[in-house]
Amino acid sequence: MNTQALGKQTIKFAHPPAIIGAASIVGEMEGQGPLAAYFDQIETDPTFGKESWELGESEMVRRAVQTAISKSGLTKEDIRYIFGGDLLGQLIGTTFGLKDFNIPLFGLYGACSTCGESLSLASMTVAAGYAQNVIAVTSSHYASAEKQFRFPLEYGNQRPLSSTWTVTGSGAFIVSSTNNQPMSNYPHISSITTGKIVDYGVRDSMNMGACMAPAAADLIYQCLEDTQMKPTQFDKIITGDLGKIGSEILIKLLLDNGYDIKKQHMDCGVSIYDNEKQDTHSGGSGCGCCAVTLAGYILHNLANHTWKRILFVPTGALLSTVSFNEGQTIPGIAHGLIIEQL
Amino acid sequence: MNTQALGKQTIKFAHPPAIIGAASIVGEMEGQGPLAAYFDQIETDPTFGKESWELGESEMVRRAVQTAISKSGLTKEDIRYIFGGDLLGQLIGTTFGLKDFNIPLFGLYGACSTCGESLSLASMTVAAGYAQNVIAVTSSHYASAEKQFRFPLEYGNQRPLSSTWTVTGSGAFIVSSTNNQPMSNYPHISSITTGKIVDYGVRDSMNMGACMAPAAADLIYQCLEDTQMKPTQFDKIITGDLGKIGSEILIKLLLDNGYDIKKQHMDCGVSIYDNEKQDTHSGGSGCGCCAVTLAGYILHNLANHTWKRILFVPTGALLSTVSFNEGQTIPGIAHGLIIEQL
Repeated sequence: MNTQALGKQTIKFAHPPAIIGAASIVGEMEGQGPLAAYFDQIETDPTFGKESWELGESEMVRRAVQTAISKSGLTKEDIRYIFGGDLLGQLIGTTFGLKDFNIPLFGLYGACSTCGESLSLASMTVAAGYAQNVIAVTSSHYASAEKQFRFPLEYGNQRPLSSTWTVTGSGAFIVSSTNNQPMSNYPHISSITTGKIVDYGVRDSMNMGACMAPAAADLIYQCLEDTQMKPTQFDKIITGDLGKIGSEILIKLLLDNGYDIKKQHMDCGVSIYDNEKQDTHSGGSGCGCCAVTLAGYILHNLANHTWKRILFVPTGALLSTVSFNEGQTIPGIAHGLIIEQL
Repeated sequence: MNTQALGKQTIKFAHPPAIIGAASIVGEMEGQGPLAAYFDQIETDPTFGKESWELGESEMVRRAVQTAISKSGLTKEDIRYIFGGDLLGQLIGTTFGLKDFNIPLFGLYGACSTCGESLSLASMTVAAGYAQNVIAVTSSHYASAEKQFRFPLEYGNQRPLSSTWTVTGSGAFIVSSTNNQPMSNYPHISSITTGKIVDYGVRDSMNMGACMAPAAADLIYQCLEDTQMKPTQFDKIITGDLGKIGSEILIKLLLDNGYDIKKQHMDCGVSIYDNEKQDTHSGGSGCGCCAVTLAGYILHNLANHTWKRILFVPTGALLSTVSFNEGQTIPGIAHGLIIEQL
C-alpha cells in the first residue's frame, strides 16, 4: 500500500513512523494527580530552579527533550529536526528551552492542539524519508499561562466552574523511521488528520471546553469518514483538554452526526487531576496536558498492549488577550493521529 | 536523482515543487516605496475597512490567500493545506484571516523567518506527494506589531537609527506538485535549508538586524556547504529584513568564514522603502516584508528570466515583550530556500 491522501483531511502512511522514545516533565500539582506514576520527572519548584516562570517553562522543555533523547539511546546529533511550540506569545518557552540544542527547528502554534500538530508534521517528515529521527515537543506552565492569558496570580481571582487549570508540563517524543519494517513494542503513527479552524461563535475565555468541542467533533467525524473506521475499532478516542463540560458537548455533537464515542472517549484534561481533591473545576488544559498524558499514561498502555489502537486528538482554542479584549470569538482547532501497535 | 537529505540541514528535492501563484497585499507606506508596481493591492486604509489594526491584518491575510487562489485559476477546494503565521501573540492575524476558508491549517511561528518556514514545510509536503496544492502565507502590520512589541503609537516615541519599520503586508504562495515534470515559466523550490536558533547574546530590541544577522550567516554558510555551491552560482542571495546595519554584519560574518556574498546580496528590508524619502531608518522588517517582496518583485524577476536562481533567506528575531523585559537575549533564526527556473 502506498502512502495515501485519504478523503478530505487524512494521510495514511504506507510505512508508519514509530515513537521510539518519549519523556514527560511536570510540576507539583500534576505530580499529586492520578497519573503521577507515569511521569519521568515531577518538579516541586514552579520556576524549575530559574529566575522566572517563563524560564522555568523553558527549563522544563529542555529537560523533556534531553530526557527523550537519553531514554531512546540516541544523541542530539541523531536528531534532524525539532517541531515545537507552546502557549506563550512568540513561543518564548520553546525558544529559550531549545536554543542550545543546535538542532534545526520548526516553531509551531496551534494553541493546545500543538502536540497534535507537531506529531503530525514530525511523522510526515519521517515518513517522506526526509529524516531518520525527529523530535516533537510541547509545553505549558500554569503560572506563565495565567500571566499570558488571564489575571496576575497575585490578584487571586475566583475561577468559574467551567474554567480549566493549565497543566505545568512538557512532553517530548522521538518520531523515527522504521525503514519499512514495523518495530514491535513501539507504538506507530499510522495516520494523521489535520484540522480546520471551527468557529461556533463562543466568546467565553473561561469556558475553553465549549470553544474547542466543535473543532474536536469536526476532526473526529472527518477522521472516521476519511478512514472508513468506526469508534468501536479504537480502544480509546482521546481528546486533549476539553474538560468535563467540553467532553459532554463533544459526545453530544458526534451523536447528532451519527457517531457514538461515549464508551471510547477519554479526555486528558479530565484524567490528569483528581478533580474532587484537587479542585481544578472543569479539569486540566494547556499544550502540556495531552503531551505529558501521551508521553506517560497513554504510551504506557500501548506499550504493554492494554490498548492496541487509539485516536489521539489534541484541541486548541485560538485566542489572545488582544483578540478577546477586542470582542472576537474564540475559534477552535484540533489535530488527530491514529497511534497503534502494528 | 532521489530527494536527498544533504549535509546537516538541507533537503534537495528530486522533483522540485513549483510556485504556481502568488499574491501581495500591502499598506499605503509600502505602496509609496520603490517596489509599488509589483504589488497586487495597495490599501490606504490602515484597518483595511475593519474595526481594529488586528482585524485589518486578518483582512489582509484573507485577501492575499483569496487573490493567490484566484490568480492561479484554482478554487479553495483545490488547496489541501495552509501553512501560515504572523507576528502577533497566538497568531491572531492568521487565525481570523483564514478561519472562513475551511482548509486544514498548520499554524507556524518563526518570527520574521516564518515566510521561509511556511514555504519549506509547504514544499516538503508537496514533494512528498501528500498534496497537489498547498498555500504558504505570512503577514505583518506596522500598527499591530508596534502595539505588540514596542510602544503605543499614540505615545510617539522617537525611533533610534538602528530600528526598522514593520511592513504592512501579506504574501501568499500556491506551492504545487509538478507531477515530476518541471513547469516552464514557473519558479521551482529546488532545495530547503532549515535553520537552528543562533544566539550571539544581543539584547537590543531596537537593533533587530544585529540580532538576526548571525542566524542568516549561519544559514547561508550551511546551505552553501550542504549543497556544495558558491555564491557566484546565485543571481541573488536575498535576506528577509536585516536592514542596512544587519546586512553589513552578515556580509562581514560570511567573509570571515570564507564566503564573499557582497555582489549577490540583497535585503528585502533595504529594498522595500526609499529610505531617504520615507525615513524608515535601517529599513523594513516583519513577516510581511520578505513575503510581499518575494510575491512581487522577486518572483517577477524569476518569471521574466532576469534571474535564474536565487537563495531566499527570511530571518527572524525570537523575542517577546515578556522575554525582553525579563532581560533575556534576542536569539535569531533563518530558513533558506533555493528558488530557480528549471
